[in-house]
Amino acid sequence: MTVDCVIFDPDDRVLLIRRRNEPFKGAFALPGGFVDIGETVEAGCRREVREETGLDVGDLHLVGVYSDPSRDPRGHTVTAAFTTRLPAAAVPTAGDDAASASWVGDWRANLLAFDHAQILEDAEKWQGIVS
Amino acid sequence: MTVDCVIFDPDDRVLLIRRRNEPFKGAFALPGGFVDIGETVEAGCRREVREETGLDVGDLHLVGVYSDPSRDPRGHTVTAAFTTRLPAAAVPTAGDDAASASWVGDWRANLLAFDHAQILEDAEKWQGIVS
Repeated sequence: MTVDCVIFDPDDRVLLIRRRNEPFKGAFALPGGFVDIGETVEAGCRREVREETGLDVGDLHLVGVYSDPSRDPRGHTVTAAFTTRLPAAAVPTAGDDAASASWVGDWRANLLAFDHAQILEDAEKWQGIVS
Repeated sequence: MTVDCVIFDPDDRVLLIRRRNEPFKGAFALPGGFVDIGETVEAGCRREVREETGLDVGDLHLVGVYSDPSRDPRGHTVTAAFTTRLPAAAVPTAGDDAASASWVGDWRANLLAFDHAQILEDAEKWQGIVS
């Protein structure tokens, strides 16, 4: 069980990391990772965002659950994807599994790890950025 | 990772099973169970409903992800809860982990296993049955 977080700034830019490790090493990805035993998915999501970007997120809204067996080449993982906004453009600091962390305007111009392009599309719909 | 399904009939009754096994043996519960490796959560949900009630469900809508570490006395399980409707009152046939399966009008009058009362409340909101 993993979590991923789609964080938008007021200009609808999205906070992406570059993966430090395989799979998809060097590719853009949503901040996220494995939930610990004894931790709620929301707490795991906040912890992973903090570890990888240095930022604290507030309310989390569930976008969906993604469970296609082929979504992760390491094996079958199920992710719960959340979305939120940060009220002003906060400055991320990369850490843990993230080689970098930055606000990205045109995420469609980049290769994204796993099924994160699909999650981003769904989160944009949830937020009313696209219909 | 588990799944649970909140199925309403046209009169807003809900399809509940009685648990054949511990924990909560004999209590009412939503149809559901563990997702298999290599199976999507939606496919696992359809399979569990079929095994426990004999019914086939159509479109599934995600209600939420429930991950309180204390929600299952056996250990930490995370469930994805879905909801759907059956167009006419189908006749369930209990099987597998279900000692019985039936449409229940006033589910609040009964003890429900796990956090299924909370899931039912959230599903009723999603369906517009309660505000």
